[in-house]
Amino acid sequence: MSSVHPDVYKLQAKIADLTCYDLLPFKEGAHRETREFLQKIVDILLDYIELCYDRNEHVLEYHSPDKLKELFNMVVPHDGMTLQHLITDCATVLKYGVKTGHPHFMNQLSCGLDIISMAGEWLTATANCNMFTYEISPVFIIMEHQVLKRMRRIIGWHSGDSIMSPGGTISNLYSVIVARYKMFPDYKVQGQKALPGELVIFTTDQGHYSMKMAAMICGLGTSNCIYVKSDKRGKMIPSELERHILEEKAKGKYPIMVNGTAGTTVLGAFDPINDLADICEKYGLWLHIDGAWGGSMVLSHKHRTTRLQGIERANSITWNPHKLMGVILQCSTFHVRESGLLEHCNRMTAEYLFMTDKFYDTHYDTGDRVIQCGRHNDIFKLWFSWRARGEAGFEARVDRFMELAQYQVKRIKEMPDKFYLLMEPEYVNVCFWYIPQRFRHMPHSPEKEEELARLCPIIKERMMKAGTLMVGYQRDGKVPNFFRSIISQDAITEKDIDFMLHEIDRLGYDL
Amino acid sequence: MSSVHPDVYKLQAKIADLTCYDLLPFKEGAHRETREFLQKIVDILLDYIELCYDRNEHVLEYHSPDKLKELFNMVVPHDGMTLQHLITDCATVLKYGVKTGHPHFMNQLSCGLDIISMAGEWLTATANCNMFTYEISPVFIIMEHQVLKRMRRIIGWHSGDSIMSPGGTISNLYSVIVARYKMFPDYKVQGQKALPGELVIFTTDQGHYSMKMAAMICGLGTSNCIYVKSDKRGKMIPSELERHILEEKAKGKYPIMVNGTAGTTVLGAFDPINDLADICEKYGLWLHIDGAWGGSMVLSHKHRTTRLQGIERANSITWNPHKLMGVILQCSTFHVRESGLLEHCNRMTAEYLFMTDKFYDTHYDTGDRVIQCGRHNDIFKLWFSWRARGEAGFEARVDRFMELAQYQVKRIKEMPDKFYLLMEPEYVNVCFWYIPQRFRHMPHSPEKEEELARLCPIIKERMMKAGTLMVGYQRDGKVPNFFRSIISQDAITEKDIDFMLHEIDRLGYDL
Repeated sequence: MSSVHPDVYKLQAKIADLTCYDLLPFKEGAHRETREFLQKIVDILLDYIELCYDRNEHVLEYHSPDKLKELFNMVVPHDGMTLQHLITDCATVLKYGVKTGHPHFMNQLSCGLDIISMAGEWLTATANCNMFTYEISPVFIIMEHQVLKRMRRIIGWHSGDSIMSPGGTISNLYSVIVARYKMFPDYKVQGQKALPGELVIFTTDQGHYSMKMAAMICGLGTSNCIYVKSDKRGKMIPSELERHILEEKAKGKYPIMVNGTAGTTVLGAFDPINDLADICEKYGLWLHIDGAWGGSMVLSHKHRTTRLQGIERANSITWNPHKLMGVILQCSTFHVRESGLLEHCNRMTAEYLFMTDKFYDTHYDTGDRVIQCGRHNDIFKLWFSWRARGEAGFEARVDRFMELAQYQVKRIKEMPDKFYLLMEPEYVNVCFWYIPQRFRHMPHSPEKEEELARLCPIIKERMMKAGTLMVGYQRDGKVPNFFRSIISQDAITEKDIDFMLHEIDRLGYDL
Repeated sequence: MSSVHPDVYKLQAKIADLTCYDLLPFKEGAHRETREFLQKIVDILLDYIELCYDRNEHVLEYHSPDKLKELFNMVVPHDGMTLQHLITDCATVLKYGVKTGHPHFMNQLSCGLDIISMAGEWLTATANCNMFTYEISPVFIIMEHQVLKRMRRIIGWHSGDSIMSPGGTISNLYSVIVARYKMFPDYKVQGQKALPGELVIFTTDQGHYSMKMAAMICGLGTSNCIYVKSDKRGKMIPSELERHILEEKAKGKYPIMVNGTAGTTVLGAFDPINDLADICEKYGLWLHIDGAWGGSMVLSHKHRTTRLQGIERANSITWNPHKLMGVILQCSTFHVRESGLLEHCNRMTAEYLFMTDKFYDTHYDTGDRVIQCGRHNDIFKLWFSWRARGEAGFEARVDRFMELAQYQVKRIKEMPDKFYLLMEPEYVNVCFWYIPQRFRHMPHSPEKEEELARLCPIIKERMMKAGTLMVGYQRDGKVPNFFRSIISQDAITEKDIDFMLHEIDRLGYDL
């Protein structure tokens, strides 16, 4: 429960009953009123930021959808509301929201409230620039160019092109579009008649569903997204991949692409990139690495060789700074090793919008490389965070999270009666079962797993209603529900991990 | 040129040399330092907002890409920078940017700096919620549900589903995916083998290139996006549409969808929706309306009947609040009339992420309706703007812009020696040629148009270098370059329109 009641935030009486039409730009000279209104919102946000990091505060105040609608009338009105009403709205929205920046929010791959990139996003909103062209967004276009080039260099490439997209699923969609174009360039114009037969792509049974989604969107059909078996740790089995490729070819289908996942959603597993690259080279397939989650590991000298060995052999890579790098949502990048391909593939020659008779060098204009037209400015917050931390800071962040995950593993192992570790994690996803008191005498078995799995939604319900913690539960196809905690924010320390384990025990002990 | 020099913004000496690691959450208790840093950024933004609306300020300070890189070293560092450096960065970024909120920026369909939705976006960044589920974003998910329902109601629908997407091009992509699924549901799983032959879609030669892009992405091939001829005003000719449908059918192809544009990018033309709907009904085709730009006209009782008559007969609609409604980027909506279709089409049964064994009613969770996984929170800024203005406020805004466009037309006609109106506008795009002195004796002709067109890039160059005005020039396939000004922000008044025309004359007079 937020300790600040929404009614605390009061505008001065003189302006409380004004409306947006009494502010700039409607009312010339209304500088004082505009500033006071915006400053009051900033005060609410600054207070909220402190609450977010306050371990005495709850992570959320849960209400059911119906109850929430009753507590907070969100209906959009016919006539506008007063400035005071808008201020109260802001405080109310934050009161009933989930504090994703709280140190006890370990629920998603994107957690945390990075102060610097948040400030960057405030500036982005105020600049309100569309990322079409150098003409409209000179600074941001150059920034995007430089940061993406640096990211490619970190990957290990001296060539290539990159683009920012609205999320990992769209970035992964790009990979199928580019891989298809590389193999069948006439497809772009002619469609299916340019194809010799059905195209297929491969990913593991642990891969993100965005590959299946891309197969649907691109017209391959979801059945042509082949799920390759993973091993016990969730890593693709290379011999299984090769078997599937041969099998599909034997059916007369045309394999075009293999997606290797660097950091799976649930287990945090890394596919063996070099083995995949060897197979792709052997059969002439495009190798995409979905590093939306685990790509940031490339920043760590300590861990990249064990997790991402061979990543520079990929043809394309998805890498989301809004996950492990802590950048505010949305911030996803897509990189292609071969220069020029992205543009050839996506150019629609929309000369009426992206004129080439401009007086400046138009090669910075991104319009012809992307499948969007207008694009949100996602670069500034990443650039700003990079200026603040430097590459060294990002590296230290990755290494620290890996340490914390290992601390959690150690703690779990120290309490074998209460917790059961699903597997040694490769990343910051720690997967485990909680064992309530009455199951503690039972030896671990698939039957016991079923029992423990059945309790996950109940513990989660208690967790959300208590409001003290957010940790997700999931299943992975091989085993039923288990808890998966994520360490991807700077606020978390060892004591928060101890809190998490203790709190799950407190909530689930009697089940 | 911004009148505030970046070096003006100084942190107190005590914290200037600190880094982000001296702030929350790294340093417990660093409330004062964190607040002072963020407040300084807010001060920069508040000053910038005032400059944006100041007609004595320039719209931009233009530099070439090379010069800009020289003036502002944007390189991302190995080690982090001080807080003072970050503060100076923010001021510098704004100094060299384009003030898209300036009353003399009439360059894009998305112009303006709406104070309310900007404040909304600040809150969005601080809340940093991913729009997966009610669990993570309870308030925002309910808000999205309610606002989108209201938008469908305004369209004239009592059923259906909607979703927010990262932009009009992605919204239009949804339309092809859904139309294809409706006609060939097995395509989703089986791909092209479920099709009897090649699919085709139709749009006008004035339509946005996103339809061609969707044809490429979805695997139809760009040649299966058929461009139907438009009339002199840029509106689709229904008889031409019917002719093309019959022609494609005769070739053995399968028409699936017609895209009618409500507000074309260049001319602001509206296709005759009722005629298109009649033809779609006759041939069993999906009717999509790309109202990314002109969809907001549905808010005006005065104009919707003449421009959008029949819009409720569409099967799907794209409508971007980040354009005429003035909401900060990005904010695009996609609506489908038939309930449930969006979910059937896009569901990948990713149960491992969108669990159905949750304790709350999961029907609010949006994961199964969208082609993204995580989504940026684009609803809050729209909702917040709606609370501030109400529907009545949005309606007044649309009507006011239409009046201003008519004022511009009147002024252009009053100066026939200096300006030539391309056509009577249907919307707020006003298209015209400027006539420098030495051409004023010549009667208007296609040859003269070629001459005037040749001068557009030169005038635009002078405009950007002077920094006083931003108005775009474009061509439309029938005629060469001309100027197209856009009225889509609250700051613009009659005197700004007078300024625009006067300034173009000042810049181009001697050419």
